[in-house]
Amino acid sequence: MKRFRLIGIGAGDPELLTLQALQALREVDVVFLLEKAGRGKDELTALRRQIMGGVRPDGDYRTCEVQSPPRPPVTDQAGGAGAAAYRVVVANWHARKRAMFSRLISEELADGQTGAMLLWGDPSLYDQTIPMIERVLSDLNEPVQLDVIPGISAVQLLTARHRIPLNRVGESIAIITGREAEEIDPTLVHNSVVMLDYSAAFQRFTGQAMDIYWGAYLGTEDELLVAGAVDQVVDDLLALRAEARLRKGWIMDTYLLRRRSAAEPAGD
Amino acid sequence: MKRFRLIGIGAGDPELLTLQALQALREVDVVFLLEKAGRGKDELTALRRQIMGGVRPDGDYRTCEVQSPPRPPVTDQAGGAGAAAYRVVVANWHARKRAMFSRLISEELADGQTGAMLLWGDPSLYDQTIPMIERVLSDLNEPVQLDVIPGISAVQLLTARHRIPLNRVGESIAIITGREAEEIDPTLVHNSVVMLDYSAAFQRFTGQAMDIYWGAYLGTEDELLVAGAVDQVVDDLLALRAEARLRKGWIMDTYLLRRRSAAEPAGD
Repeated sequence: MKRFRLIGIGAGDPELLTLQALQALREVDVVFLLEKAGRGKDELTALRRQIMGGVRPDGDYRTCEVQSPPRPPVTDQAGGAGAAAYRVVVANWHARKRAMFSRLISEELADGQTGAMLLWGDPSLYDQTIPMIERVLSDLNEPVQLDVIPGISAVQLLTARHRIPLNRVGESIAIITGREAEEIDPTLVHNSVVMLDYSAAFQRFTGQAMDIYWGAYLGTEDELLVAGAVDQVVDDLLALRAEARLRKGWIMDTYLLRRRSAAEPAGD
Repeated sequence: MKRFRLIGIGAGDPELLTLQALQALREVDVVFLLEKAGRGKDELTALRRQIMGGVRPDGDYRTCEVQSPPRPPVTDQAGGAGAAAYRVVVANWHARKRAMFSRLISEELADGQTGAMLLWGDPSLYDQTIPMIERVLSDLNEPVQLDVIPGISAVQLLTARHRIPLNRVGESIAIITGREAEEIDPTLVHNSVVMLDYSAAFQRFTGQAMDIYWGAYLGTEDELLVAGAVDQVVDDLLALRAEARLRKGWIMDTYLLRRRSAAEPAGD
């Protein structure tokens, strides 16, 4: 029987690896590395190689590099009617990825071997690799044991760095996409984490008595952190974000928008 | 200068510790262990001792055991008007805890030493230790460096065990309390994680074309997992939950409620 492991490696810093992930990496026979274009993917692939090099200095495993079907552009699909169209485009992209994984697991993994993918952050958060691999495996003519190993997400690193809880007492938490942050009524947002934001949607949330806890390149040596009242930091944040994006060629940021309660002064 | 560390130890399994948490535990001079009553707190304290024993077998650190002010009963505060009253009760409880921590950090930690608390799961998720300690430190007459170290939460373990993503493509995620799950209009729930549910609120979500991914005692040897259509599993789940609670004397469960999309058959 073959085994396939989806291993959360945490958000950036190799020290975020869990002991469970470390052990899983030690047992792997074949590491599947997807080469992707754009938005810092080269750096993420380099980090995966660095992690494997640290965990398995003997190099006693095989690396299988594959060109992943390129993700369809996201920004073209924005707007109210775009959500359904976006889902279709993503579904087609997933079908091409499934065909690729089906071939890899059939042909590149021998019986009794364990294959693995190293997933950025946590495998469950805005990552559709789990259902994709589940479907690939259910369509294969052979049984494959699938294991999922959790990892520290960028959201957790964001709150740890800012030393804040994700929620106040009894409060709920929403995790939304940049797309939703672009469209939602700002008065409805009380405590929301925004991920996958390509257009700095936080600038819509001025005049809302709202604080922002922002982070980019979390867990890496380029990490940036900003916290304060949205009204007060929005201009500096837009400038910082633009400058970083220009300098690095890409940006990946995550932030928490939190409506101030009556008792809290601005920026608290 | 003193240092104080809030270290996320993950949800149950010591293998969920990150390398960063491990290193932080190795550097600690004083571990503050809060003895609490009820709902498996003895077991959680025992787990903390077990982790410290594993990481520091030489025992070259001091353990400071303190009786924590008991948490006010939660179930008595349920109901629509209860939320504000509940916040007041919790605020008073927090004030007593702050007084305790102020004394501990002043008197039990020497200059140059590092103190730590081992926090279950992730320090940011439904845990008010961070703002409590921040406030204690800001009221002290001496500077103390505070570090927060993230840990794998029960929510991440739940999705890893069920091998599901936390969200489908482009979808948002809500994390709510059992209290909110008892009061919310079930038709408004699409993809919500419920935590701190003391009354099996999932039973309100029948007839909703909704699936549940449920887990209790996650990460421990008593771990229980159930997945399926709410309509189909609710009776078995209530029985299983009641039986487990009776046998163990407490239960801590977490679950994801997910509205089925048109394309998905029941229980998929």
